[in-house]
Amino acid sequence: MSMSNLRDLYINELKDLYNAENQLIKALPQMAENTTNIALRAAFDEHLKLTREHATRLETIFEELEVPPTGKKCIGMAGLIEEGSEMLKEDADPDVRDAAIIGAAQRVEHYDMAAYGTVRTFADQLGFEDHSRLLEQTLREEEEADKLLSRIAEDVNREAESRRMG
Amino acid sequence: MSMSNLRDLYINELKDLYNAENQLIKALPQMAENTTNIALRAAFDEHLKLTREHATRLETIFEELEVPPTGKKCIGMAGLIEEGSEMLKEDADPDVRDAAIIGAAQRVEHYDMAAYGTVRTFADQLGFEDHSRLLEQTLREEEEADKLLSRIAEDVNREAESRRMG
Repeated sequence: MSMSNLRDLYINELKDLYNAENQLIKALPQMAENTTNIALRAAFDEHLKLTREHATRLETIFEELEVPPTGKKCIGMAGLIEEGSEMLKEDADPDVRDAAIIGAAQRVEHYDMAAYGTVRTFADQLGFEDHSRLLEQTLREEEEADKLLSRIAEDVNREAESRRMG
Repeated sequence: MSMSNLRDLYINELKDLYNAENQLIKALPQMAENTTNIALRAAFDEHLKLTREHATRLETIFEELEVPPTGKKCIGMAGLIEEGSEMLKEDADPDVRDAAIIGAAQRVEHYDMAAYGTVRTFADQLGFEDHSRLLEQTLREEEEADKLLSRIAEDVNREAESRRMG
């Protein structure tokens, strides 16, 4: 595709994000299934609901822009999800596996934070105030999800470390 | 590999990061070459120096742990760099390309922030205070680099948007 102005790039980035969210909707149940920590599993279940909402918000923006949301594969998210899947295949103690899954999930959260930060800034520059509000809301929710994972990690890491003495 | 405790996972994650930094050392000059904005190019040049320092800090940690730093490919960083390279191939106005490159670079910064946050937390849990300080220092520098890119983006996005009227 040709990108001759910021609006073209904005649409390109939104398509990338929409594809990323849909990849995540498929990957999150697998992450939840592989955890043994109840709080972590609940966090993934909750994040799946939120991710569906984030995708719906993007659909609202595409409707307003009158462009289809499809046509782009997010290579960045694909790499992050593949990295997480590889981690699941390794032979690991359950608590250590949980700690590893949190690490993978926080990389995904940070991808989303960077990407939503970028499109929100583009929306501001282009004067799409409604879009900016929706994107900002998603950005805040991703930041909260990341903080929740950091809190859960404290317990999980403690459990994982106790294996050293076990 | 088998990961039976947090120390194993810590080493696994450090190897992932060391590989990620080395991928970035190869990719940053290409990003710098493709920008037209002087401040952005200077930021990439500066970040290349910092990234080399971050890799050296990881080598210090590996020496202390008495394990080799090699043996893992960071799939997540590979995906992010591939995504950035794909963006460079698209037919784009120079200012729009700069805005796109900043978006790709901020995803890379966020990957590093998530990954360094994870290993720093592991180092704390494992009682590696010296490692924790080194990793924290890198984490802060990655956060600063991300903020600098956000500031440069303001000018670049304004230039890119002016193409709409052009």
